[in-house]
Amino acid sequence: MRTQPTRFVFLGLALLLIAVGSTDVRAADSLPSWNDGPAKQAIVELVRVTTDRASPKYVPPEQRIVTFDQDGTLWVEHPLYTQVIYCLERVPAVVKEKPELKDKEPFKTVLSGDREAIAKLPLKELEEILAATLTGMSVDEFQAEVKKWLATARHPRYQRPYTELTYQPMLEVLKLFRDNGYKTYIVTGGGQDFVRVYAEQVYGIPPEQVVGSVSGTKYGYDKTGKPFLTKEPKLLLNDNDAGKPEGIHMMIGRRPIAAFGNSPGDQQMLEYTTAGDGARLGVLVLHDDAQREYAYGPAQGLPDSKIGTFTQALYDEAKKRDWVVISIKKDWKRLFPFDK
Amino acid sequence: MRTQPTRFVFLGLALLLIAVGSTDVRAADSLPSWNDGPAKQAIVELVRVTTDRASPKYVPPEQRIVTFDQDGTLWVEHPLYTQVIYCLERVPAVVKEKPELKDKEPFKTVLSGDREAIAKLPLKELEEILAATLTGMSVDEFQAEVKKWLATARHPRYQRPYTELTYQPMLEVLKLFRDNGYKTYIVTGGGQDFVRVYAEQVYGIPPEQVVGSVSGTKYGYDKTGKPFLTKEPKLLLNDNDAGKPEGIHMMIGRRPIAAFGNSPGDQQMLEYTTAGDGARLGVLVLHDDAQREYAYGPAQGLPDSKIGTFTQALYDEAKKRDWVVISIKKDWKRLFPFDK
Repeated sequence: MRTQPTRFVFLGLALLLIAVGSTDVRAADSLPSWNDGPAKQAIVELVRVTTDRASPKYVPPEQRIVTFDQDGTLWVEHPLYTQVIYCLERVPAVVKEKPELKDKEPFKTVLSGDREAIAKLPLKELEEILAATLTGMSVDEFQAEVKKWLATARHPRYQRPYTELTYQPMLEVLKLFRDNGYKTYIVTGGGQDFVRVYAEQVYGIPPEQVVGSVSGTKYGYDKTGKPFLTKEPKLLLNDNDAGKPEGIHMMIGRRPIAAFGNSPGDQQMLEYTTAGDGARLGVLVLHDDAQREYAYGPAQGLPDSKIGTFTQALYDEAKKRDWVVISIKKDWKRLFPFDK
Repeated sequence: MRTQPTRFVFLGLALLLIAVGSTDVRAADSLPSWNDGPAKQAIVELVRVTTDRASPKYVPPEQRIVTFDQDGTLWVEHPLYTQVIYCLERVPAVVKEKPELKDKEPFKTVLSGDREAIAKLPLKELEEILAATLTGMSVDEFQAEVKKWLATARHPRYQRPYTELTYQPMLEVLKLFRDNGYKTYIVTGGGQDFVRVYAEQVYGIPPEQVVGSVSGTKYGYDKTGKPFLTKEPKLLLNDNDAGKPEGIHMMIGRRPIAAFGNSPGDQQMLEYTTAGDGARLGVLVLHDDAQREYAYGPAQGLPDSKIGTFTQALYDEAKKRDWVVISIKKDWKRLFPFDK
């Protein structure tokens, strides 16, 4: 027994060091890749007022929900959404299994590799490509295919895996929220099953916190009687526009405290989020940095874009509703994790 | 500085007491309302082998998912599912708002209070009642109505609020799993929005961990421009039978390590769960205690039942697949939290 107090003196001193250490961490800048400005300030302030017990805007931990769109908000969406590139690059494998598709449109055009012709495919034909490459296989097979593709595919401009093209400032925001007791959710128009393959590794977001467009699955048994789920071409949730708050209600059942997006497909999510009582925050990313990334609007006179457009109407709505607009050019000091 | 070591001696002693205390807690019986037997043993053993780092069946914390059916598994489902009682008891209020329904079937029969006639309503007419009482209002209105009803409604036999008719042994199982790093989910055929109203308070299960039958919602704006969600009569997921593994994939995206149910509607969930690699557990509750609760099968010669039936085929399947069958009579020492 005589040694116990001594041991706890050391333990106590260790605790003191840890305490001092963690005070340092908290005091240090949790968003080092952000330039000082209203965007950074609004995010840090929201976290502060909702987690400080003395604040009138304090939010109990179980209600701390924050949602993030993915394409154009957490990672690069130009020149084309990553999942669409996956679908296009899967076409040869699909045609190999079903040779009768080889001379049929839209498969023929995709196989031709003619980028201009592919870009001109009407929506209905693009949907045929998505259905052929995202459904009809088991959930396990799909996950394995996506994982394999992600390991080798490279972004045409950066020549890096797509999973490296996440925005360092947003990774810091995810961490800041999580370190303060928030559950971070992805709420994406992309396929839920697609994003779940890498979300945990890339963003630290587990599958159950990925809300996306949902296709139904069908339960069945293989030859040995083992059950498995097949991905069906039956859309249960189109997680865009009004589908975002609808999907948030279905999958989470609570209104977020803060929401991040970058295009009109995120507007209803931000409306729904910021219409709640107490402290709320809506944030939009404006891609205005052609040098380091891409510049597209057409808000604020930026070039128009088909992918992840940021309309002037959305920009005006943001000003009207006090949503924060992030300028990549001005607000983000460092863009990608691999940037020095 | 001289006082610091002394303070930490006291802190150290306090820590020592806490440590001794928590060892005691861990060593103590975490399922005190269970009689010793194979059911209790199987549950405790599953938790042990999946959380002991030295075990070959160790499961990392993020994969620790356990799912529970609700009606007949976590709380009483006789003489009728609680949500159906809610719907029937809401009919007068619905008719008051829409007097034209008063003389129309099936509303007329429900208003008559004739229990035999109500019990004989065909499924299609019952569905009309469900649609009229569960949809057409805003999500906020619905939550407020359910909350109000739960506060005053009483179970006909026990004369207690339905939310008190949870099984104490299962509350202990929920806690045991959670204390060991598991996320506990409800996976119910009941309405997701209904169960979410009370799941946090009653079971300690937050809304985002309640998977149930899902009706779509529709996003819109009130007169002041404030957005809200309306419950629509559009079934997106029937969370019964094959719908349970399909719902688990949609809402969680991981295969559970253990699953608890009590009727054929849970069979596919148990199949899917126990078909996974490593340690898995399927458990079914058999209601065989007419004295303390209800006795119904028709498995094992128990009286047949329309509500939460336990077929002999399910019983045989359980034996074949090594699923655990809980006998309420033999395995549960104490039934309800209010029992002494």
